[in-house]
Amino acid sequence: MKMQFSMRNVMILKEKTCERFFSEVRSRDGIFVCTIATTETALIPGISAAGATPELRRYTAQADVEYLYYGKVLTIKEIPKNPLGPPSPVIITKAACNLMDIPILIIDAGCEVKPKVPSIVLRKEGLRCITTGKAFGGGKSLIQKAKVLAEEFSKLERYVVLGESVPGGTTTALSLLTFLGIDAMGKVSSSMVDNAHELKEKIVLKAYKNAKLDSKYIVKNPVKIVESVGDSMQLVNAVLTIYLSQKVPVILAGGTQMLAVAAFIDVLSKYLKEDVNWKNISVATTRWVAVDKNADFIGLAKAVKPLKYVFAANLNFSESKFEGLRGYEKGLVKEGVGAGGIVTAGFVKQLFSHEEILHEIEKLFASM
Amino acid sequence: MKMQFSMRNVMILKEKTCERFFSEVRSRDGIFVCTIATTETALIPGISAAGATPELRRYTAQADVEYLYYGKVLTIKEIPKNPLGPPSPVIITKAACNLMDIPILIIDAGCEVKPKVPSIVLRKEGLRCITTGKAFGGGKSLIQKAKVLAEEFSKLERYVVLGESVPGGTTTALSLLTFLGIDAMGKVSSSMVDNAHELKEKIVLKAYKNAKLDSKYIVKNPVKIVESVGDSMQLVNAVLTIYLSQKVPVILAGGTQMLAVAAFIDVLSKYLKEDVNWKNISVATTRWVAVDKNADFIGLAKAVKPLKYVFAANLNFSESKFEGLRGYEKGLVKEGVGAGGIVTAGFVKQLFSHEEILHEIEKLFASM
Repeated sequence: MKMQFSMRNVMILKEKTCERFFSEVRSRDGIFVCTIATTETALIPGISAAGATPELRRYTAQADVEYLYYGKVLTIKEIPKNPLGPPSPVIITKAACNLMDIPILIIDAGCEVKPKVPSIVLRKEGLRCITTGKAFGGGKSLIQKAKVLAEEFSKLERYVVLGESVPGGTTTALSLLTFLGIDAMGKVSSSMVDNAHELKEKIVLKAYKNAKLDSKYIVKNPVKIVESVGDSMQLVNAVLTIYLSQKVPVILAGGTQMLAVAAFIDVLSKYLKEDVNWKNISVATTRWVAVDKNADFIGLAKAVKPLKYVFAANLNFSESKFEGLRGYEKGLVKEGVGAGGIVTAGFVKQLFSHEEILHEIEKLFASM
Repeated sequence: MKMQFSMRNVMILKEKTCERFFSEVRSRDGIFVCTIATTETALIPGISAAGATPELRRYTAQADVEYLYYGKVLTIKEIPKNPLGPPSPVIITKAACNLMDIPILIIDAGCEVKPKVPSIVLRKEGLRCITTGKAFGGGKSLIQKAKVLAEEFSKLERYVVLGESVPGGTTTALSLLTFLGIDAMGKVSSSMVDNAHELKEKIVLKAYKNAKLDSKYIVKNPVKIVESVGDSMQLVNAVLTIYLSQKVPVILAGGTQMLAVAAFIDVLSKYLKEDVNWKNISVATTRWVAVDKNADFIGLAKAVKPLKYVFAANLNFSESKFEGLRGYEKGLVKEGVGAGGIVTAGFVKQLFSHEEILHEIEKLFASM
């Protein structure tokens, strides 16, 4: 009975025999780690709806984590919104964290403006636009820091839900996936209804042109690839996952951005000569991403060969009493700040029902 | 039998009936949190031996936490040393953490130069000399951040060993203790053999003169006191302890610096109108601090009235094969980076014997 209850709420999108992974998650408590960064890629008009305007997108990641900790935003006036109205998915994440009583830790992988929350700072500066072909530097130092952090987190013996907030991040995901040889053009998700595939592709091609890297770098030096045409969240979350997976289960909480992280884990672990335990790794997103007709999350998930477990939290806001939340059903907002992954963890551990999480989200929405 | 084993190694210096506290610590796993900061107070010649020269003391805290994480120092050439030779107590802390497999988290409460480790940054800038009467600003923001951090740490349901590395910190401790009405002149500990009581007192009196605060601030606004004549570690660790104590046991790991934190907890909790659970709070230091004839740790501990539990790890290096370590028995180094508190936790939980911890320290010393 209990199993059915949980399975209705979690969509299983790849390998079907995931009972071992679920039981590893069920057998322990968790922590929620959210890695944030800002990239000037997000400032390109029309690239993202994670924040109402390009100028406000400078602060979306910071506002997200401030809301997570304080239930209010300090850096800007209010919680980030899609220009068409629906609030940032952070309210889903916050609602789940409230019900799960799970500890939250923020990793700052490079923000131009620092959030007003206690965060583990791995990098001082924000990231350049990927069209420069030099998105960020200091990748080796980030690897060193993320590795020790993973070692410390491992000692907690908890499962880790690893989220992100990186406005412009689906474009850097497209860029990294494609460079790694995965046919991702037209397939990544978006914070916008109609996506912006053509614009994203144009940006990615410009990034490649200026980066002047060839595919030999996949083996020779994948760190250079992510530094040139990716983002620091991808690198940090990949390193964390490699080392965490050796000890504890990890839920990469996100959509196509986390598929890019998973694809990168494969090449990075070989380069670092580190074991990665794929039996301890899943990607979990929301239903809105999984069924998005303007993207191909499931197709991309299949293309990331070593990744076994891919889930989606079967969230449905069509019955919500709030129009803002019903906007999720129109694809106006789909995922972010680890929403899909943390809710999946809550469903797998039966810490709340769909009714309870929706109720908590509505409570937060009403008090915004 | 087992109890006797542990009691030989832990000196009980105040309230004798501490079995409840010990059993709370024994019933759970722990985390080690080390709060660091730099104050220009440490640059006054003759004030400190935490670092071989005033210039090197700018980097003592950073080097300490780098060694904790990496087993090597990145910011400067080598692990901080007393000018007379013995190494920073961080090797004791590191040895204990190795044997206990306890997760380590670093809080940066304000460092002029940032350490090259992942740390939770609460404040960007370092602190001014207390003689300015304006050591730091932004106390309210630090309280807000430390509070949410304590709430997240509490959810781990682990005991917390809370250490510090703040060169010059016994002078700011003297300053805060005295302002709070505790007769501390000539009684605080020191990183030097002969202490430097006269110099410290002169500095404190200059701080008071320039701060222009009267004793009414103890009730009216104690945050202003610590901002003016104390340091940010004292404020952050006090806030963390207040909120942590409501849920989990806390070991304030240090000597007279942690007595200053304990004294400040009393006034700050009243000001913030927050409950503090003294049954969940202890101060634990090393034997070298407890028996130091040039200070009066036990007398000061008694003067901090609400503080119930005060311990010292009964470490003894007189039989060490290394002269550098035997220097601890001459009072050349005594405490720091939470050494006494983390070893006390290890002894209470019987995770190592005196022989085992000494062996691990010698191993680290030999490989330095």
